[in-house]
Amino acid sequence: KVNSDRLWDSLMEMAKIGGTEKGGCCRLAATDLDKQGRELYIKWAEEAGCTVKVDAVGNIMCTRPGEDMSLPPVGSGSHLDTQPTGGKFDGVYGVLAALEAVRTMNDNDIKTKHPIEISVWTNEEGSRFAPAMMGSGVVSGRFSLEEILDSKDVDGLRLGDELARIGFAGDEPVTGRKFHAFFETHIEQGPYLEAEEKQVGVVTGGQGQRWYNAVLTGRESHAGTTPMHLRNDALIASSKLVLKVEEIAKAHPPGCGTVGFMQVMPNSRNTIPGEISMSIDLRHPIDEELSAMDADLKAAIKEIEESGPNIELDPFWYYEPIHFNQDCIAAVRKATQDLGYSHMDIIAGAGHDACYVSDFAPTSMVFTPCLNGISHNEIESTTQEECEGGCSVLLNAMLTMAEV
Amino acid sequence: KVNSDRLWDSLMEMAKIGGTEKGGCCRLAATDLDKQGRELYIKWAEEAGCTVKVDAVGNIMCTRPGEDMSLPPVGSGSHLDTQPTGGKFDGVYGVLAALEAVRTMNDNDIKTKHPIEISVWTNEEGSRFAPAMMGSGVVSGRFSLEEILDSKDVDGLRLGDELARIGFAGDEPVTGRKFHAFFETHIEQGPYLEAEEKQVGVVTGGQGQRWYNAVLTGRESHAGTTPMHLRNDALIASSKLVLKVEEIAKAHPPGCGTVGFMQVMPNSRNTIPGEISMSIDLRHPIDEELSAMDADLKAAIKEIEESGPNIELDPFWYYEPIHFNQDCIAAVRKATQDLGYSHMDIIAGAGHDACYVSDFAPTSMVFTPCLNGISHNEIESTTQEECEGGCSVLLNAMLTMAEV
Ligand SMILES: NC(=O)NCCC(=O)O
Ligand SMILES: NC(=O)NCCC(=O)O
Repeated sequence: KVNSDRLWDSLMEMAKIGGTEKGGCCRLAATDLDKQGRELYIKWAEEAGCTVKVDAVGNIMCTRPGEDMSLPPVGSGSHLDTQPTGGKFDGVYGVLAALEAVRTMNDNDIKTKHPIEISVWTNEEGSRFAPAMMGSGVVSGRFSLEEILDSKDVDGLRLGDELARIGFAGDEPVTGRKFHAFFETHIEQGPYLEAEEKQVGVVTGGQGQRWYNAVLTGRESHAGTTPMHLRNDALIASSKLVLKVEEIAKAHPPGCGTVGFMQVMPNSRNTIPGEISMSIDLRHPIDEELSAMDADLKAAIKEIEESGPNIELDPFWYYEPIHFNQDCIAAVRKATQDLGYSHMDIIAGAGHDACYVSDFAPTSMVFTPCLNGISHNEIESTTQEECEGGCSVLLNAMLTMAEV
Repeated sequence: KVNSDRLWDSLMEMAKIGGTEKGGCCRLAATDLDKQGRELYIKWAEEAGCTVKVDAVGNIMCTRPGEDMSLPPVGSGSHLDTQPTGGKFDGVYGVLAALEAVRTMNDNDIKTKHPIEISVWTNEEGSRFAPAMMGSGVVSGRFSLEEILDSKDVDGLRLGDELARIGFAGDEPVTGRKFHAFFETHIEQGPYLEAEEKQVGVVTGGQGQRWYNAVLTGRESHAGTTPMHLRNDALIASSKLVLKVEEIAKAHPPGCGTVGFMQVMPNSRNTIPGEISMSIDLRHPIDEELSAMDADLKAAIKEIEESGPNIELDPFWYYEPIHFNQDCIAAVRKATQDLGYSHMDIIAGAGHDACYVSDFAPTSMVFTPCLNGISHNEIESTTQEECEGGCSVLLNAMLTMAEV
């Protein structure tokens, strides 16, 4: 049994770093606050007897020795970065649940054959730097190290430079990582566990995603003197596109479509906008449906272009739906049943580092409920009991795989 | 006859201050560049024998003495601030045409009974600080000095502080200004003179305007895990509102409706936007129609609110259509005819300082064509001949009123 109070206290302690007025957390990837969060975690991991290494993309690996150090570790972990208006649990819970599992092993003098390794993956959120799951994506080989270190935030700052600045451009290579098995605990971030009154979600896979940048170019002109029929208003065009994205998602249930980012140029109230930069995020658990959404988007853009603007669409990120490893799924399901938690199978709506780890290692995830299904919001909430449940399941699944 | 080359050279010289790569000008109100522009203009005005005063809202008054200094001056002028993606002529032409009129009077040793006064009005554009026509609006009594000095830009900087910083928080009172007559020359900024192949527009008035700020509040949540039917997406709501504004304007020809400014919060590509701030700009030459547009806007907002978001509408600026003084209009028309320029009567689509000056003095305006009717764009363009035409008409109308 894990130490529920200790887990909760650590969550609340970590949440102070970047804590917001509304009770959330703003700890963007590779900022000073991310550095503080990482350093606090490393202190705890060292106190728990782990060795600490950092790789070239800033991923942190903390190892609790196993009896046979030639065996690949059983891994767990998640991320410490948050959204700009993030909560206290998204990501952090997965890291600190893994830490609590190690602490509990220490408390009970448990020896495992396989080493245990806790991962903190760099920039999982994909908010400051896009796409998401960068750290795990580099290790899995989905992204090249160079392109990821070269990605820039909205102010033009390079991830590589920012990692160096905060002291987390490490020496370890990003290649050759191995796990005997990998488990990530995470709050569900959606409404299903709560609606079905289940304590644990046994995650069987994740939906596919397509991310785009779109730049819409119209023509700046005067808001008072340009007759309506002579305008080429980039914001009118982007507004049509925003509504089309919603329409496309609704036409492909249970797909999702979102425009979360938009910048208006020159953003002056009496100048007709000449250029809009925006993001588009399409998701679906079935790849054929996701492809159909992509086709619908391209058709919608053609149609909107006919009314005047030029639209450049950059489909810069795609991954197809993820299917987790049957043995790892079974290990999670068995741990849940053994511990007597109510549970259901579930597909992750969000992207998670586990999705990319599953490229090179047997992987699955443990979900716990979150209040009203709300995440990426400062009011994101869950209970100590729910956190304890997911962490206990994690511990048991890990111990099974690590061979006590 | 005015000195066409000198006028053009001064325009090109001023355009270097804040000159942009695309050949436009970015010299926002009360910035360092605005200071530089003001200082260059004051140097020129002093060289032309004018005395210079600055009032408490930063308006600059340059006076060429008249024979009877007890008489109110004949005034002219405009503004030196620009849009973020502004052109070389909007505003600047009106200031430098007035200066060229004074220079020509000097060249020809012309003595006028009334003094001549050139005005540079503070923050006409309304882009960095809203609303527009602040300097003339304070002098006319439409705005209180305090509220205007207290207005803030998007970074929270106060206009009053910024004026003090650039050395243009002057001593002269903003009250008690008088003009025997006031004329403002300006590029049309719209397509009508060009379409009708006229050299000069005799401006009989200006359309009315209503400016609003709207804040739309939805609920932030995760772009991948929040089912479409459970969302309260503030950007969906604002997109509907943008399209409604266009629809409303089109339903009230020749009205205009524009959203030029929008900020998305938290502006993260995988977070459903929780809050949007946006501007709305409605205009119409007939006040009843402008009121109907206002009512349509409020109805549209009610309707959009029914789909979830809360919408706060702040109607912070309104002025009804302006009718210029018949004698001043006639003076402009006569000067145009005397000089043999083709002309037409026209209503200003933009707001101009002359609109507010006409509250307390007989006023009208002289318009000149601009290429493809495009303004508030770096490619804004006009010809030396067109500038000369408007300036000659200005000179003649001023001399008539100032009594040679
Ligand atoms: N877990 C999570 O919120 N990940 C961010 C990446 C995504 O948008 O799915
Ligand atoms: N002349 C001009 O562009 N004025 C700006 C104020 C307005 O939006 O009409």
